[in-house]
Amino acid sequence: MITAPLGFRAAAVASGIKPDRLDLALIAADRPCSAAGVFTQNRAVAAPVLVSREHLASGRARAIVVNAGCANAATGASGLRDAREMASLAAGALGIAPAEVLVASTGVIGVPLPMAKLRAGIPAAALRLSAHAGEDAARAILTTDTRPKTVRVPLTIGGRAATLGGMAKGAGMIAPNLATMLAFFTTDAEVAPELLRQALVEAVGASLNRITVDGDTSTNDTALVLASGASGAPAIEAPGGDFDVFRRGLAQAAATLAEAIVRDGEGVTRIAEVRVEGAPTARDADRIARTIAESPLVKTALHGGDPNWGRVLAAAGRAGVDVDLSRADIFIGEVHVAEGGAARAYDESVAAAAMRADPVRLRVHLHAGSGAGWIWTSDLTRGYIDINAHYRS
Amino acid sequence: MITAPLGFRAAAVASGIKPDRLDLALIAADRPCSAAGVFTQNRAVAAPVLVSREHLASGRARAIVVNAGCANAATGASGLRDAREMASLAAGALGIAPAEVLVASTGVIGVPLPMAKLRAGIPAAALRLSAHAGEDAARAILTTDTRPKTVRVPLTIGGRAATLGGMAKGAGMIAPNLATMLAFFTTDAEVAPELLRQALVEAVGASLNRITVDGDTSTNDTALVLASGASGAPAIEAPGGDFDVFRRGLAQAAATLAEAIVRDGEGVTRIAEVRVEGAPTARDADRIARTIAESPLVKTALHGGDPNWGRVLAAAGRAGVDVDLSRADIFIGEVHVAEGGAARAYDESVAAAAMRADPVRLRVHLHAGSGAGWIWTSDLTRGYIDINAHYRS
Repeated sequence: MITAPLGFRAAAVASGIKPDRLDLALIAADRPCSAAGVFTQNRAVAAPVLVSREHLASGRARAIVVNAGCANAATGASGLRDAREMASLAAGALGIAPAEVLVASTGVIGVPLPMAKLRAGIPAAALRLSAHAGEDAARAILTTDTRPKTVRVPLTIGGRAATLGGMAKGAGMIAPNLATMLAFFTTDAEVAPELLRQALVEAVGASLNRITVDGDTSTNDTALVLASGASGAPAIEAPGGDFDVFRRGLAQAAATLAEAIVRDGEGVTRIAEVRVEGAPTARDADRIARTIAESPLVKTALHGGDPNWGRVLAAAGRAGVDVDLSRADIFIGEVHVAEGGAARAYDESVAAAAMRADPVRLRVHLHAGSGAGWIWTSDLTRGYIDINAHYRS
Repeated sequence: MITAPLGFRAAAVASGIKPDRLDLALIAADRPCSAAGVFTQNRAVAAPVLVSREHLASGRARAIVVNAGCANAATGASGLRDAREMASLAAGALGIAPAEVLVASTGVIGVPLPMAKLRAGIPAAALRLSAHAGEDAARAILTTDTRPKTVRVPLTIGGRAATLGGMAKGAGMIAPNLATMLAFFTTDAEVAPELLRQALVEAVGASLNRITVDGDTSTNDTALVLASGASGAPAIEAPGGDFDVFRRGLAQAAATLAEAIVRDGEGVTRIAEVRVEGAPTARDADRIARTIAESPLVKTALHGGDPNWGRVLAAAGRAGVDVDLSRADIFIGEVHVAEGGAARAYDESVAAAAMRADPVRLRVHLHAGSGAGWIWTSDLTRGYIDINAHYRS
């Protein structure tokens, strides 16, 4: 919950971008915060990402304005003007500088933002800021998500209580290296901007960058963190024990949101952790894990609860990594289904049960080095088709 | 039709690998043929691929034995023995050397071949060889395909009539660099092995390597060609006009089968050509085209007939090619929907009609060089899910 830490308020309004739904969230800090962000690696970068990157150059920010229903992506120079105006509208309503406002958008690509609605909605949101509106803000950023995703992690820093809060949206276009994923974290710890950024990169690298629903990386992916220092806990200005507490807390918060995003992926009924060990390098392991995790055949087998390890092996073989799969072991949960790249004797009913576990754990050991990696994935279902054949994202 | 060229007979039997269905095909030439093959690039290579590669080293072969229902992949040393025994069984029944027999299998991965059934089935097939069984042979190699795929191309070589025939199976695990795709070509032209191989590599590179249904490259992909010379047309032993006739014919045959495979892909209701132009290199263009063609969001938009070009742009942006998408033009059929990476004014109903054309033509121009590439793809439907959540491949 982004309003859990001291010094933050939020608001959500139905601005009319989407019919009759909360679609605009504002997060505001009572004082200047240190701030950090990580963004999509898609070459098609949405306008709000460009603006937030620019505003984060100072390492400081005080507010985040987010809309759903329109991604303001593939909108050219006018889209960039619109994103800047979103920041200015929030700044004006809050009495701060536009450069202190970070901007995020999610929704349809290639359509201009309906600025008239934002010109009314953003000041209206500023008037409704409250320390109790965190849940509403988490709802306002959703697209095809079925439920809001929030997290709260208590921290003890230098003997003082502090809090980390977060919220995210996911659902579709979820792929490693962020997704159509927006994640916002707040904390009342005081953390120097460079350390805040380091902790965010680490936390996202071990969580939000390791989830895939459909392999489609969005143009708008954004993870932001604001640190208000309002807890009164000692400032974290150098690596050490206090920083470790903070980075672990942020990693935990990000992991919680990442799992929630996969579980609420479009049409998802089952999730799996795909782990690859014994690869030549960690990068190779990640690449193979991702190929397995994104294979439509693996994802449909997961949906059917079918322990079809041959599809896992075949996906591993096409990952573009030069490994000898005739040495590979494959495990479904605790069941060792393949050894030396070929079937072992195993109890099919036990393997089938492992393929219906929550989460399913698929593990491949390549015996080709010490590189390891993992990724979270989901099954591929009729629900995904139904949502995406007719929803404009 | 692989029995269309002179000098070839075929047979199909229901050997019992699959219940009550043709599941074993034999193709036999009356005389030794020059032969060539191209195979899966998956690192997990099935046993029959290993055996066929070995037998092709001489550039000569006389028969092809193919089973459906079991891929003999991920079956270790015993799988390799079984594939060799398939060749020996066919050789024994035909009175030729095992090294003259090429082997292919398709079906479930990780399960041993039921050799007792093949020991009965292969000799039974040899007894039924006929110049009229090409259609039955095309049926016997199918898995989740809904219909047989055959082609016949007449050639005129040195003023003499010759013929090219072919058959293929596809359906799932269809991805560039072959697919769970088996394609067999026969010709009564006489072509030197090295030229035959060159023509096959070219033909496959422009057809069967440019189709994707689900991005999953199989362990068993195989394309083989046998040239009997029985037409009496002049032997093609050097590049030149006759060779050009032959290579164009083979390219046409392969393209026909490739299109048939995409159209009959699992659950497919609509197909599309994705063309990328103006990329830094042809390889970049192919990479971007493939990423677009395999994007679940693009494929579901195709299913919905939704001219959602934003998904095309977003997929292009995550292809891993360093290009500036703010210069990209996108066309759906003849409709220029995006320019400079942003929406143009266009008639939505015309674009929607173009998104329901047969085939749909998606074209992206990057204005970043002269590299061009294309790929054929299909939509992603509930049918794909239903087939693959419960079918063991």
